Amino acid sequence: MARRRRIYEGKAKVMFEGPEPGTLVQYFKDDATAFNNQKKGVINGKGVLNNRISEFIMLRLAEIGIPTHFIRALNMREQLVREVEIIPIEVVVRNVAAGSLSKRLGIAEGTALPRSIIEYYYKNDELGDPMVSEEHITAFGWATTQDLDDMVGLTVRVNDYLSGLFLGVGLKLIDFKLEFGRLFDENGDMRIVLADEISPDNCRLWDSKTGDKLDKDRFRQDLGNVREAYQEVARRLGVLPAEVESEDTEGDPKNPRVVN
Amino acid sequence: MARRRRIYEGKAKVMFEGPEPGTLVQYFKDDATAFNNQKKGVINGKGVLNNRISEFIMLRLAEIGIPTHFIRALNMREQLVREVEIIPIEVVVRNVAAGSLSKRLGIAEGTALPRSIIEYYYKNDELGDPMVSEEHITAFGWATTQDLDDMVGLTVRVNDYLSGLFLGVGLKLIDFKLEFGRLFDENGDMRIVLADEISPDNCRLWDSKTGDKLDKDRFRQDLGNVREAYQEVARRLGVLPAEVESEDTEGDPKNPRVVN
Repeated sequence: MARRRRIYEGKAKVMFEGPEPGTLVQYFKDDATAFNNQKKGVINGKGVLNNRISEFIMLRLAEIGIPTHFIRALNMREQLVREVEIIPIEVVVRNVAAGSLSKRLGIAEGTALPRSIIEYYYKNDELGDPMVSEEHITAFGWATTQDLDDMVGLTVRVNDYLSGLFLGVGLKLIDFKLEFGRLFDENGDMRIVLADEISPDNCRLWDSKTGDKLDKDRFRQDLGNVREAYQEVARRLGVLPAEVESEDTEGDPKNPRVVN
Repeated sequence: MARRRRIYEGKAKVMFEGPEPGTLVQYFKDDATAFNNQKKGVINGKGVLNNRISEFIMLRLAEIGIPTHFIRALNMREQLVREVEIIPIEVVVRNVAAGSLSKRLGIAEGTALPRSIIEYYYKNDELGDPMVSEEHITAFGWATTQDLDDMVGLTVRVNDYLSGLFLGVGLKLIDFKLEFGRLFDENGDMRIVLADEISPDNCRLWDSKTGDKLDKDRFRQDLGNVREAYQEVARRLGVLPAEVESEDTEGDPKNPRVVN
């Protein structure tokens, strides 16, 4: 496959022009950032793991009828996706209090929420991705009321499905972030599809017995064994790449692969 | 009137037990605070001005059928109000970008908004009154969906009416904050009523010709002539108390009445 123009480089992924019009190649980096870029690091092998985990989840979601941008995996770090018009809103679903919700509302981390709560954040690094409400989103035209209805409908289904899927492998889905895009067909008709990725980078996953964190909070909070946590999630989902398992033994103290 | 038990002391007001069950006496202080209590001061005469301005507005709102907690003014600093169960949510309406919206979303102060935007803040000093959405409010039981519908319906009407009223006296209503309470009648039936006050303490008011700020931002931003701004609003509404006008001449440099 000819790799062409770089379209966009984010904190954890790069988007390249795809082999045919309307497609992109999504490349998963090992870079990790937190706290609006104030903390940076590298988790060696993360890109490979997230590519596999995200591929697995996108395929499962397609099976239950959730439209996504995912087409197919290309190699260890890349997947082919449909080009969509990204909606600049992060949709967060919270099942259990953690992270910024705990801090903002003074609710102890780990407290079960009375019901799942959906939050919106405006994707804007300069502003630190501020929390916004439907009022802001529709008033400023970032998405229409119909877009939001579609996004929320898909989000609720994804939350139900993933909560079950993860529980089946001993993981509690605490919260996660989704992004959506507008996909236009040849007639110009638009539909909202799930874009981005779904991985321990944007899901909080706790071991359902021990409560151990198996997600990016290990990086944010310097808990150690970051890479091992991502591997454990991939292992439980049955998609741990052999290459990553074997790499595990090639330690290089000058280039630590796990950021603690 | 016998003044009895102090029920609650807030930053700008004190609530005393009223002369009969189900009533309270609302006392307006001269204290001013900003930035979640980090900035404190006294604006001499503010309590008298806000009592008059708020009385005037509550009476006008009652005339157009907005239920409020206001019964009648008692004296220069006090009004008799109905006791309500306060809903711990501040409802903010924004017509023009200013204050925290400008900062949070990077929109220059003074930018007209595409349409009026309603925001909610959870009343909690320890947490700094964080912005919340309907999701948080209903999930944590701070208000029901029906409460919120009633509050928003009243808020939209108040915004329409006050925008017109202020424009009639040369003031642009930039944004304002409302609080609501549940009022129970003798049969136990509940309705949502406007509570709190409406004054330059919680409305941003700019002169419609010069753009001069005639509200608490003069205190927040050290713009000077704070008291004079509140007086000007009262004067334009036709409710400037004679006592405050005459006090104006009693300068005491050791006790400056205007906090700059």
